[in-house]
Amino acid sequence: MDLNCDLGESFGAYQMGNDEAVMAYITSANIACGMHAGDPPVMQRTVRLAARYGVCIGAHPGYADLQGFGRRSMDLAPDEVEALVLYQIGALAGFARAEGRELTHVKPHGALYNQAAADPRLAGAVARAVSRFSRELGLVGLAGSKLIEAGVDAGLGVANEAFPDRAYNPDGTLRARKLPGAVLERPEEIAANALRLAREGIQVTDGSTTQAIQVDTLCLHGDHPGAAENARLIRETLAGAGIEVRAFRPADTAR
Amino acid sequence: MDLNCDLGESFGAYQMGNDEAVMAYITSANIACGMHAGDPPVMQRTVRLAARYGVCIGAHPGYADLQGFGRRSMDLAPDEVEALVLYQIGALAGFARAEGRELTHVKPHGALYNQAAADPRLAGAVARAVSRFSRELGLVGLAGSKLIEAGVDAGLGVANEAFPDRAYNPDGTLRARKLPGAVLERPEEIAANALRLAREGIQVTDGSTTQAIQVDTLCLHGDHPGAAENARLIRETLAGAGIEVRAFRPADTAR
Amino acid sequence: MDLNCDLGESFGAYQMGNDEAVMAYITSANIACGMHAGDPPVMQRTVRLAARYGVCIGAHPGYADLQGFGRRSMDLAPDEVEALVLYQIGALAGFARAEGRELTHVKPHGALYNQAAADPRLAGAVARAVSRFSRELGLVGLAGSKLIEAGVDAGLGVANEAFPDRAYNPDGTLRARKLPGAVLERPEEIAANALRLAREGIQVTDGSTTQAIQVDTLCLHGDHPGAAENARLIRETLAGAGIEVRAFRPADTAR
Amino acid sequence: MDLNCDLGESFGAYQMGNDEAVMAYITSANIACGMHAGDPPVMQRTVRLAARYGVCIGAHPGYADLQGFGRRSMDLAPDEVEALVLYQIGALAGFARAEGRELTHVKPHGALYNQAAADPRLAGAVARAVSRFSRELGLVGLAGSKLIEAGVDAGLGVANEAFPDRAYNPDGTLRARKLPGAVLERPEEIAANALRLAREGIQVTDGSTTQAIQVDTLCLHGDHPGAAENARLIRETLAGAGIEVRAFRPADTAR
Repeated sequence: MDLNCDLGESFGAYQMGNDEAVMAYITSANIACGMHAGDPPVMQRTVRLAARYGVCIGAHPGYADLQGFGRRSMDLAPDEVEALVLYQIGALAGFARAEGRELTHVKPHGALYNQAAADPRLAGAVARAVSRFSRELGLVGLAGSKLIEAGVDAGLGVANEAFPDRAYNPDGTLRARKLPGAVLERPEEIAANALRLAREGIQVTDGSTTQAIQVDTLCLHGDHPGAAENARLIRETLAGAGIEVRAFRPADTAR
Repeated sequence: MDLNCDLGESFGAYQMGNDEAVMAYITSANIACGMHAGDPPVMQRTVRLAARYGVCIGAHPGYADLQGFGRRSMDLAPDEVEALVLYQIGALAGFARAEGRELTHVKPHGALYNQAAADPRLAGAVARAVSRFSRELGLVGLAGSKLIEAGVDAGLGVANEAFPDRAYNPDGTLRARKLPGAVLERPEEIAANALRLAREGIQVTDGSTTQAIQVDTLCLHGDHPGAAENARLIRETLAGAGIEVRAFRPADTAR
Repeated sequence: MDLNCDLGESFGAYQMGNDEAVMAYITSANIACGMHAGDPPVMQRTVRLAARYGVCIGAHPGYADLQGFGRRSMDLAPDEVEALVLYQIGALAGFARAEGRELTHVKPHGALYNQAAADPRLAGAVARAVSRFSRELGLVGLAGSKLIEAGVDAGLGVANEAFPDRAYNPDGTLRARKLPGAVLERPEEIAANALRLAREGIQVTDGSTTQAIQVDTLCLHGDHPGAAENARLIRETLAGAGIEVRAFRPADTAR
Repeated sequence: MDLNCDLGESFGAYQMGNDEAVMAYITSANIACGMHAGDPPVMQRTVRLAARYGVCIGAHPGYADLQGFGRRSMDLAPDEVEALVLYQIGALAGFARAEGRELTHVKPHGALYNQAAADPRLAGAVARAVSRFSRELGLVGLAGSKLIEAGVDAGLGVANEAFPDRAYNPDGTLRARKLPGAVLERPEEIAANALRLAREGIQVTDGSTTQAIQVDTLCLHGDHPGAAENARLIRETLAGAGIEVRAFRPADTAR
């Protein structure tokens, strides 16, 4: 099981998250690329930090909407999305290259992640940007989503992502944040959920039959006070249950 | 002699320059990288255009000041400049890579070009960004400037740039634009100046002795009505005088 | 009949439109406020130009998306839209005040205009921003749209806007640009359409009964070569038919 | 004595400072205007907060450099500075007006503050922007600086500002931050310095004679953990020494 975290989200004088605290417990870092968060010095610093901890370095491209932190849906043409994602992959790859590292994966951020999970045209645009940069890159998306399908179609290795601090609907989608019980708060509960997701995947039922969506990577959070503690607990819980925590390898899933 | 031009300077709905008209006559394209001009779709389009014409693709990084078109000096720390330049090189390199091409050179834009020509600390920051990305990249700078020195010190191939439509002071610097005669307007005059620069370099005199700064590349302009015509005339004038017009090769000058 | 035009859309080194050419023929200028287009010097220049021509000065707020020219829908909360619009009204009002003028109206731009035409919550947010700044301001929106309704509900004077170069569907909405015949090209045709809209309003039919939506203002365009000529022809056509061309007066329509 | 603080410096998801904690102790709020910090919802919220506490509302315009937080010098023409400042004054004034309040003052931020303190052309541009918006506005600048002179020349009320947590050079300028002893850390020391500045002004000596620059307003900081406690202590120390703490009144100083 891969443990990923969105990092490098500071911007100029604005600090966000405690990247170093969580780096010790994760296997993949998704680093913001200057559009919804991050700036060139922050990207350089975060890439170096990930390299020092031996954590896989991935691009975390988002909409060019710093004020909205990339969380506000925008209506871009697929061609615009493809160029926007390719731009950000390249920018982050430059910092990785300067440190003698290569990018391993790409995970879209925020509204782009959500829109690409549901819209095959945007999903295709993201997958094209990734595969045009390198077919060795893995594509991380919402488990079972259109983005995963687009990645598979593009011949990319894909990682189905799940959120151990979130409740899921019976159809496998995330329960809306505003509903009660949508977000788990207690560390032990989150860790137990992580273990269940690792073992059983996401359970999807239509009332009569139940299927499971496999989970390849779990998203941890780095931007709240107990982030490091949560990350540590999840990692220990998985390891204690005999589940190997290691970075996702795109080549294992690419067809 | 290399003929270069700054291209890809449109942004969103804003058009600037007539990139295609000039592409047929140049050997190196310096493509804006989204900070002072250019946006991801414009960059992609311009890279493809250069690839189609067989023109060398270089990054043209500038300050993050779209309103000022990167022409307003800013006071950044060398570390900030280094990260800013590396970011932009990477972003453009992604588009080149997606087209199966590699970047050949980097030329800073506007105020960054001018400040790096005069300030060894900024010059060093730019050269470091370039060499950290790749030591195969050439660095284009004002002929005889601190930026050229920094490139040489970093082991990079360097291209001394001159401006055939500008008058030079006796000390080899550009005559200030606001002075009479600083900017040449007549195409024949510009072409003749290009030929003189190619043959003799920039003449520098202290009153008693005269030296010449070698010129490796001439900067043409793509953003005014007669741009293509000027470019054609310069190219023909050089060719007619037996001067080979071909892209600058960094390896020829790197030590 | 009021004749309005979107102006002040240049940005930094990027020129757009020929504001002065069209100013002589219009009665209301909608001036971009620095988010989707325009910058402070452009705003100042355009306000001065409108003042010199005795043209009414209105704010033309849009989404903070310069690359998309404010034409890409964004998903903002109503509170965000309200603050965004209020910000831009204030910014433009400062330039008007510095010239001894007052704003007369507000017309949202691009995607904000379209979304506020259809979504009562966004329409209400725009109307609130306007009325909080001043209840003397007129609100310009798509004829018969939710934005007009929201303006009326907020006690504002409202101007129903129509587009003489566009074809309308039977239900009174604009025919989609991509459909054949959606955009009129011939100046005489556009002028004839302007006259029809002025006399008859927009004809809305459900097959059996037909109603007309009154038109208070016609939108002319300033960003193509024949803009001034078109504007002159429309103005002459209306005047020749005895229709008074004068600025919209919010107080005439406010309840 | 006026006590002022720079506030409203959050941006989107990025929090900065604890505005409410310090609001109870100050008399004037300088609110960021969306260029170097602040965004429309943040501005609205901060204006409302200041209104609720009865604190004077001033504009705090800066360079359009969010990444540099407006602290990096930029080379703008005076006309550009004038338009930039006028834009930001107008934008903030819109929020004040929507709350039934008027702006009382303007204080430039960061690099603009420093450059306008030293350069009469920029100082004049700032003063012109302020006086064109309203001659009732006060202008806050570095005590004894060119900006104060320009404000006086423009007929504005001016407030000489001092920094109780900073050491001064014998010539009345601020000791550079990088020098030892430049920044006072202990709250009691800062409060004692505030009292001295209030009573004696800034002592300027050329070795033989000593003069004092009067201080009209003291700048407190809102962006570090002990900010509120520091503010409270300064206010109590001044009040305990019989110095009235009240907002600066521009009309008292305008000629």
